[in-house]
Amino acid sequence: ASTIALGEEEQHREEKGGFGGSSSAAGGNKDGPEQNGVASYWGVSPNKLVKEDGTEWKWKSFRPWEAYEPDMSIDLTKHHKPTNMMDKFAYWTVKALRYPTDVFFQRRYGCRAMMLETVAAVPGMVGGMLLHFKSLRRFEHSGGWIKALLEEAENERMHLMTFMEVAKPKWYERALVIAVQGVFFNAYFLSYMISPKLSHRIVGYLEEEAIHSYTEFLKELDKGTIENVKAPAIAIDYWRLPADATLRDVVMVVRADEAHHRDVNHFASDIHVQGHELKESAAPIGYH
Amino acid sequence: ASTIALGEEEQHREEKGGFGGSSSAAGGNKDGPEQNGVASYWGVSPNKLVKEDGTEWKWKSFRPWEAYEPDMSIDLTKHHKPTNMMDKFAYWTVKALRYPTDVFFQRRYGCRAMMLETVAAVPGMVGGMLLHFKSLRRFEHSGGWIKALLEEAENERMHLMTFMEVAKPKWYERALVIAVQGVFFNAYFLSYMISPKLSHRIVGYLEEEAIHSYTEFLKELDKGTIENVKAPAIAIDYWRLPADATLRDVVMVVRADEAHHRDVNHFASDIHVQGHELKESAAPIGYH
Ligand SMILES: [Fe+2]
Ligand SMILES: [Fe+2]
Ligand SMILES: [Fe+2]
Ligand SMILES: [Fe+2]
Repeated sequence: ASTIALGEEEQHREEKGGFGGSSSAAGGNKDGPEQNGVASYWGVSPNKLVKEDGTEWKWKSFRPWEAYEPDMSIDLTKHHKPTNMMDKFAYWTVKALRYPTDVFFQRRYGCRAMMLETVAAVPGMVGGMLLHFKSLRRFEHSGGWIKALLEEAENERMHLMTFMEVAKPKWYERALVIAVQGVFFNAYFLSYMISPKLSHRIVGYLEEEAIHSYTEFLKELDKGTIENVKAPAIAIDYWRLPADATLRDVVMVVRADEAHHRDVNHFASDIHVQGHELKESAAPIGYH
Repeated sequence: ASTIALGEEEQHREEKGGFGGSSSAAGGNKDGPEQNGVASYWGVSPNKLVKEDGTEWKWKSFRPWEAYEPDMSIDLTKHHKPTNMMDKFAYWTVKALRYPTDVFFQRRYGCRAMMLETVAAVPGMVGGMLLHFKSLRRFEHSGGWIKALLEEAENERMHLMTFMEVAKPKWYERALVIAVQGVFFNAYFLSYMISPKLSHRIVGYLEEEAIHSYTEFLKELDKGTIENVKAPAIAIDYWRLPADATLRDVVMVVRADEAHHRDVNHFASDIHVQGHELKESAAPIGYH
């Protein structure tokens, strides 16, 4: 249930247009049209949320209880050895994709992280959606996998929301993202329809590469070739980082997230390899 | 973080194949391949969850903290008066869809509920997915709307998981669901790409019709033409119903859910009507 919190709030119409592109205004923390009476008829204006320290929660796109402290003890070196043909195909597909990416970005790891997170958020959403529709068609439970994959997609989107505070996309980078999303969405959609086993394996290997890239990012930060700026506010709230956290801390927690995604996706692929369906095995929900 | 809970569990391989179609085994409460060592390498086997009364949590597809007590005080009679051309188009589209549905199902409300929930879970997933990809492409926050719409989809899927414990789909009904999903997924996908404003309005009116159908369902239960059986276990856990709850209680809470969806979708359409984008307005997350 939700109550309406109108009244003490003024019109913020004049701020319209300041959304999206501009830096600190880049989102989630603005008042919008709920002030102009729409919500008061439908009664859906959300409560004001507060942080643990009593200050107002700034983000619309995630809630305080979705913040978490990632498990930093996760093994970063785990690797699925490609044994059969499918594994090898998945492994070399990812390696082949890595090469042009390296050439394109060189050592610009901030920019690279931002751009690649727009792609990383695709598989979880596509997989979750396809499992949702399958669950409906077959009148079957999903074992929690719909949620687990959608959570992965959301987590990746939060990575993007974080890195875009540090690196700003240029117009041709935005154009590139649109083109790549168009291709990758369709490719992954098809791939997941044909073989979830192969698709999860590919994502598992992509995550292994992501861990590697973030390790390189950390090296550059330690060498000083990339400036270790203050962590963006959204990252501090999302991962419960200390107030004086830096970009290095952010990269550390993001890398831990990628290691979790690696585990989930290789696990999902292994379930299929063993001849099971995902729904037979409880999904790792809330696995960070 | 998750720990591995192997050991005391036996192999359940022989149960394979009992998933899906069969009645009480229809889901979410079985052990799966995590027993055979896959999870132990990837370390993602989830913790055992317990209910508030200390007994084991049976469901894989949703977690204890996703259960809720719906707001039964919600106004069931609210209606968006169709004023402009778009509203009228949306309204009469829904009315036109209602007619063959009434003819097809007659007074078989249990069956009707089950069948229609397979359709009701489509718009939230499609809308949420499209907003997710838009958020990635534009490097923008969503204002929480991705989550709000995905939550709606999940809620509708839980309606289906509930009603399929009461009414069992026949083979030709399953075939019909597949056909309808194929058409409706594509139609709504296109419609949402072209006009989220119209799409949310249509869903708003669909929810108004759903409220009406569930009210008819309640009348039949009260007349005794439909037997007021015990509420399925999943419904008791999902809506925190008392242990002796009946089908009537279930229909009551489901109807309250539909009223919430009605509000959210008319609200979303209103935001667009006022020339805003959804992300400018905080989404009603966790609005039940
Ligand atoms: Fe990521
Ligand atoms: Fe990842
Ligand atoms: Fe429903
Ligand atoms: Fe609904």
